[in-house]
Amino acid sequence: MRLLVALGGNAIKQAGEKGTTAEQFKNCKITTKLLAQIVKRMGPDDRLIITHGNGPQAGNLLVQQDAGKNIVPPQTMDVVGAMTQGQIGYMLQQTLGDYLRDLGIDIPVCEVVNQVQVSPDDPEFIGENASKPVGNFLTEAEAKQLKREHPEYIVKKVKPVGEKCWRRVVPSPDPIVNVEAEAIRRMVDAGIIVIASGGGGIPVVLEANGHYRGIDAVIDKDLAGERLAQVVGADVFLILTDVEKVKLNFGKPGEKEIDRMTLSEAKRYLAEGHFLAGSMGPKVRACIRFLEWNGKKAIITSLDNAIDALDGKTGTEIVKD
Amino acid sequence: MRLLVALGGNAIKQAGEKGTTAEQFKNCKITTKLLAQIVKRMGPDDRLIITHGNGPQAGNLLVQQDAGKNIVPPQTMDVVGAMTQGQIGYMLQQTLGDYLRDLGIDIPVCEVVNQVQVSPDDPEFIGENASKPVGNFLTEAEAKQLKREHPEYIVKKVKPVGEKCWRRVVPSPDPIVNVEAEAIRRMVDAGIIVIASGGGGIPVVLEANGHYRGIDAVIDKDLAGERLAQVVGADVFLILTDVEKVKLNFGKPGEKEIDRMTLSEAKRYLAEGHFLAGSMGPKVRACIRFLEWNGKKAIITSLDNAIDALDGKTGTEIVKD
Repeated sequence: MRLLVALGGNAIKQAGEKGTTAEQFKNCKITTKLLAQIVKRMGPDDRLIITHGNGPQAGNLLVQQDAGKNIVPPQTMDVVGAMTQGQIGYMLQQTLGDYLRDLGIDIPVCEVVNQVQVSPDDPEFIGENASKPVGNFLTEAEAKQLKREHPEYIVKKVKPVGEKCWRRVVPSPDPIVNVEAEAIRRMVDAGIIVIASGGGGIPVVLEANGHYRGIDAVIDKDLAGERLAQVVGADVFLILTDVEKVKLNFGKPGEKEIDRMTLSEAKRYLAEGHFLAGSMGPKVRACIRFLEWNGKKAIITSLDNAIDALDGKTGTEIVKD
Repeated sequence: MRLLVALGGNAIKQAGEKGTTAEQFKNCKITTKLLAQIVKRMGPDDRLIITHGNGPQAGNLLVQQDAGKNIVPPQTMDVVGAMTQGQIGYMLQQTLGDYLRDLGIDIPVCEVVNQVQVSPDDPEFIGENASKPVGNFLTEAEAKQLKREHPEYIVKKVKPVGEKCWRRVVPSPDPIVNVEAEAIRRMVDAGIIVIASGGGGIPVVLEANGHYRGIDAVIDKDLAGERLAQVVGADVFLILTDVEKVKLNFGKPGEKEIDRMTLSEAKRYLAEGHFLAGSMGPKVRACIRFLEWNGKKAIITSLDNAIDALDGKTGTEIVKD
């Protein structure tokens, strides 16, 4: 059995925290202690593969780069993504390694720097289509100031009401191919617990000359995680987020938790608009793709319910028809 | 044949450059185009393993983190090191992959996030012993200001004369063990071109409870590279720097280039103080350790002379007696 776990942002930085190194290690430890328990239940031929978000870390790094821009040139967004892979990979692999040794488990853990190819013709790159908010919420005045300083930015009103309802948005193109697929496959085959596709992967496009080039974008980490699941031949795709179960009629009358849905039910609910775009929407879409590819089972639940969900006791399970 | 190449800072950011993303990619391309040529000369059972410095990148990131400190908490130095592994790994693996495909070579390339264990009792952690300068050169007034802002910093006069001759220094402890040794070994065995131990590795100590903990330090990348060479069973250790050959009586009367030295000659010259501490000194020391371990040949030369040096036509070669 090969299990791919996608960790949400709260696995590394919780809402309301500043994001100090100490806070992030504290959160990582909660996460990796649980992952070590999952590894303990696995057999010698089973494999764990991990991916993770990077939203809060990339946001903080962008702020720091901007604050220092008169002294040191800010790096482009692809490089910022790569830097957060190093940062989060370090914290996850150190603490997971620690907890595995505590359990007497001798399996190497390693994050790889990882690019994901997107199409330069993706609709997200056209006009003002970009949909992924990054950085802080801004007032209208702050939004206008940001746009003056960075005319190339797309700044949008992302909330209908409130004082601070503007944010910078960047393209969130669909992931096509995991560039380091072959290396990752060999590592998983060699028994390594691989952490990959961090933050949805470093977004790159393939140029006419056959070379890759980084691009200013943020790939959804669950959709990229699904590409990774294909690469490693995952049987189960476990998406950990901040709720125990997916809900029908989210935020509306008739809201109801889903214990189990089939692939066609999931597709119908998605089309009917039950899930929030930029939140549960891409998670359910990633699960649909996973099952349509060849995956056996997708699960969406919260970190503290992960083991119960793997045992079929909670979470939302999505299976083939 | 297994070849470990250690890339100096100038392979990624040249002196006088600001360190924009474009500049760094331009430099990486010069480096990786050459590395691809080296791979082209190798047989199917040969292996290339790469390590690299991170001084300029870590320096820039520390400046950015400091500039943004009133908004976003700066990360500790171990995390900063991890972030530069992501950054540099991305640029090297993207461009090396490009050039390998240009040559029709289908070998996966991957940087791993990589910790290196040091001893908490290393003399570099005692009192004001710390020896590795980081960040900009400062005037005496700026040095005093930095010390007021960060009482925990060690700030030293690192040049005897001149206006700006003060710098922050951090401990540069001796590397003991590459923490991800087993993962790296399996990757190299599986035919992957591994980039590891970037910036000398993320410095960690092993606590009494058996868990690793990051520490504020910078490990010398050549000494850490030598540990990596042992991990992967390298035959040849090629250190690329900014000079074609090592010199006897460096900067003194009787200065003379060395074509070849034996292990005992290298040890004698080092003891006699021919090589600059913090510069050629640790490189020669790393070569000595490599040969004393089991390595066949160590070479120190510049990037543009790398292939000639591998052919024995230039560079400084260090071999067993």
